[in-house]
Amino acid sequence: MRLIDLNCDVGESFGAFVKGCDRSVLQSVTSANIACGFHAGDPGVMQRTMAACRELGVSPGAHPGYPDVQGFGRREISASPDEIEGYVLYQIGALDAFARVEGLRLRHVKPHGALYNRAAKDDAVAEAISRAVIRYDKDLIMVGLANSLMLDVAKGMGLKTAAEAFADRAYKPDGTLVPRTVEGSVIHDRDEVVSRAVRMASEGVVLGVDGAPIKLDITTICLHGDTEGAAALAKGIKEAIGALGVGLVPMHIVLGGA
Amino acid sequence: MRLIDLNCDVGESFGAFVKGCDRSVLQSVTSANIACGFHAGDPGVMQRTMAACRELGVSPGAHPGYPDVQGFGRREISASPDEIEGYVLYQIGALDAFARVEGLRLRHVKPHGALYNRAAKDDAVAEAISRAVIRYDKDLIMVGLANSLMLDVAKGMGLKTAAEAFADRAYKPDGTLVPRTVEGSVIHDRDEVVSRAVRMASEGVVLGVDGAPIKLDITTICLHGDTEGAAALAKGIKEAIGALGVGLVPMHIVLGGA
Amino acid sequence: MRLIDLNCDVGESFGAFVKGCDRSVLQSVTSANIACGFHAGDPGVMQRTMAACRELGVSPGAHPGYPDVQGFGRREISASPDEIEGYVLYQIGALDAFARVEGLRLRHVKPHGALYNRAAKDDAVAEAISRAVIRYDKDLIMVGLANSLMLDVAKGMGLKTAAEAFADRAYKPDGTLVPRTVEGSVIHDRDEVVSRAVRMASEGVVLGVDGAPIKLDITTICLHGDTEGAAALAKGIKEAIGALGVGLVPMHIVLGGA
Amino acid sequence: MRLIDLNCDVGESFGAFVKGCDRSVLQSVTSANIACGFHAGDPGVMQRTMAACRELGVSPGAHPGYPDVQGFGRREISASPDEIEGYVLYQIGALDAFARVEGLRLRHVKPHGALYNRAAKDDAVAEAISRAVIRYDKDLIMVGLANSLMLDVAKGMGLKTAAEAFADRAYKPDGTLVPRTVEGSVIHDRDEVVSRAVRMASEGVVLGVDGAPIKLDITTICLHGDTEGAAALAKGIKEAIGALGVGLVPMHIVLGGA
Repeated sequence: MRLIDLNCDVGESFGAFVKGCDRSVLQSVTSANIACGFHAGDPGVMQRTMAACRELGVSPGAHPGYPDVQGFGRREISASPDEIEGYVLYQIGALDAFARVEGLRLRHVKPHGALYNRAAKDDAVAEAISRAVIRYDKDLIMVGLANSLMLDVAKGMGLKTAAEAFADRAYKPDGTLVPRTVEGSVIHDRDEVVSRAVRMASEGVVLGVDGAPIKLDITTICLHGDTEGAAALAKGIKEAIGALGVGLVPMHIVLGGA
Repeated sequence: MRLIDLNCDVGESFGAFVKGCDRSVLQSVTSANIACGFHAGDPGVMQRTMAACRELGVSPGAHPGYPDVQGFGRREISASPDEIEGYVLYQIGALDAFARVEGLRLRHVKPHGALYNRAAKDDAVAEAISRAVIRYDKDLIMVGLANSLMLDVAKGMGLKTAAEAFADRAYKPDGTLVPRTVEGSVIHDRDEVVSRAVRMASEGVVLGVDGAPIKLDITTICLHGDTEGAAALAKGIKEAIGALGVGLVPMHIVLGGA
Repeated sequence: MRLIDLNCDVGESFGAFVKGCDRSVLQSVTSANIACGFHAGDPGVMQRTMAACRELGVSPGAHPGYPDVQGFGRREISASPDEIEGYVLYQIGALDAFARVEGLRLRHVKPHGALYNRAAKDDAVAEAISRAVIRYDKDLIMVGLANSLMLDVAKGMGLKTAAEAFADRAYKPDGTLVPRTVEGSVIHDRDEVVSRAVRMASEGVVLGVDGAPIKLDITTICLHGDTEGAAALAKGIKEAIGALGVGLVPMHIVLGGA
Repeated sequence: MRLIDLNCDVGESFGAFVKGCDRSVLQSVTSANIACGFHAGDPGVMQRTMAACRELGVSPGAHPGYPDVQGFGRREISASPDEIEGYVLYQIGALDAFARVEGLRLRHVKPHGALYNRAAKDDAVAEAISRAVIRYDKDLIMVGLANSLMLDVAKGMGLKTAAEAFADRAYKPDGTLVPRTVEGSVIHDRDEVVSRAVRMASEGVVLGVDGAPIKLDITTICLHGDTEGAAALAKGIKEAIGALGVGLVPMHIVLGGA
């Protein structure tokens, strides 16, 4: 049976500032990337998000970012690789405390926003993040863009990796994402997003902007939880994939772990 | 052989802002209370402080505070007990990540500043902190003021506790501290501080402001690391205590653990 | 012609965290209390909010709070009166920069959240805030709860003051607010809120929980902008008050200034 | 009579974190660049620094930076030009509040750290900063590196500018600074620093690393206040320049203003 994971960024509220529709989205995904307080999330939000993961049977992972709540971690900060290693370790540890009290185990780490983008092209940063993950727990799975430097580096250092694809993003023929600044880079039509997700799940294929299929070896499909209708879309994708006979399971099971 | 622990607050620098003379003080103490990023400390500082603990054989513990770098955690913030439980869990987890990569084990938790003071008189907060500690690791030792509500609550909830005394603070005849706002509350004469520490270590006794000895069942003596001459004073106390034949060991050994 | 002001807290978004429906509410109020970056608001939000005030002819004022974005300024922080004076000066100055570039003049200051509550009962804090306001611009109007210590102190120090009442809050017979923790303290029925506002505007009277009218000498009615339906409610109140022949004007005009 | 200004970065403490030896350095300089709370400084520090400027007759200016206390404003943050314009406006306004209550007038603006460096090479950022300054007060002087893009842009937009030189930094033959990463980039010998400052003040000349004199049209010499011996060095430079008959005055007087 073919297996695939659905992941979503959650726990992005901050104090009185509510963001995303976590609970309803968590009902349809298999992995949750939980903000760790640096770009979003606070201890209370983390605690509630982890409790929701336990109740709904979602596999939790860390979503560490740059220390920049105001910029939501989307601004590049010229922190050194050493600083970044410390940032990632700190955030994994902080989140793990909440997993521990809920009797859960962190399964993966996915860098957020500007850190994700930097790790996709800066060797030293990809190494720093991988080092933090390995030193904390060598069984944690590194999640990154399919075909990215981040995943190559992590794999080279001995980590398990999970390549992700985006059901609502346009792809260039070389398998990289069309930048957000380009018109048409984000796909808004719900049916099209569902059908792209289905094709990723069943055939491991995404259609490029030129209409040609691109083979991607993906472990997980990323859904966005902060857009309107995210919960309904997640539910639609879950059902469509389930109807195909593809198994929706957390990424460590896709990768053949326990 | 009588045993006692010396503890000190360390890792209180923040980015380019240097505070304390950690390394030199760490050469004389047996337990380190390490700031966890909320009132002081940042991931880089935590990493370096933990590495110094490993090198110098000092037992590391968490020193969680309110989220207030500008106020250095010395201002009371009316956070709810639930918020505080989350804050403490978050900070213990974050610090533990650095202990883990250094192959060390966190041994104790000592609330910082305004949180320490609130926990000494607010049941619900003392319970929230104790709950966070127990849920994270029931073998962690709670450090607090001798005879304080904080320690009673922690003990009542099943935690091991370590009562601390301050060699450089004046005590009221009832065994509580003379408030800092009162003249003479802080003892600056180095010889007197050493001799008070020695008496605490050897006889478990502190002299009250009326000159009468007060019996305190203490496990650890707290030294201040951010004052000038802290390192020399710590060295003086270490040597004076050692000369008495009292063993200086981390608090979990004083308490009879492994 | 009887005159009254309608004020609303706005500019409470923070980076990617959106809060309130500012623009639609600003179409119905005459004074805006703009967050200054300490508990909410950031420079970009402040700039856009000030531009909206200019476009819509709303009178801008500062809404300074404690430095606590995570707690949204709703948690008491034991800052000293001197610290608070500095906080208020800093925030007024920062906001004034944006008024200046839009060609507007700040007209009032209204402390936010926990700072508002503390100033309503702590003399030294009410004085510190008043001192900051006077030293910055003695023509600024201090806004506070009707019959509160804050207004008495400000008036005693020579400031113009504007007492505010809440159309959606229940009042005790002594003219103070029923605490939020008491059931029925917040009035949710839209028609009742409008009718209470109308009565405040036309007769200067609010009904106490015992049904008896309480005479309040109010200058401004506070509307809440962060609740669902806030814009519609504000519009309803504006129209109902206008229909009575009561003039809706900024508070400095109510108070007879230029 | 030849005139020159001496400027120094001050007010860089933050809460309990003390940095620099402001008061003693302020006794020798004529212009102070005061941190505004984003990378260093807090309202209390700003208030005390401004009071010291008044007492000692030092001309105050704003030293705005990126919002990054932990990185001390030395890390590049990919904020947009619009965000930066808002940041600069906010910080100037906040600082101006303290100037106002001391009866002083802000005279200049000098971007700090990573923002200074970015403005020296990024047109859009140099324009954003200049726009903020002009919109706030077109008489404020923009301070920047001699021959930098920042000053060209500011001048082109109609601002008065003050080129600064560093007495303790090595210069390349083209008049740009030797990067800090290169050995010998910072000159530590006190006598040499004084003699370089004297030559800048009296002849407008700095020696390049090749020994050849470079003509710089400078208005102000920047002294570093956070290094050991800063106060003594500042005093030495002040006396040596004074002995030459060069007048030490604030930069607006050097530039011929009132």
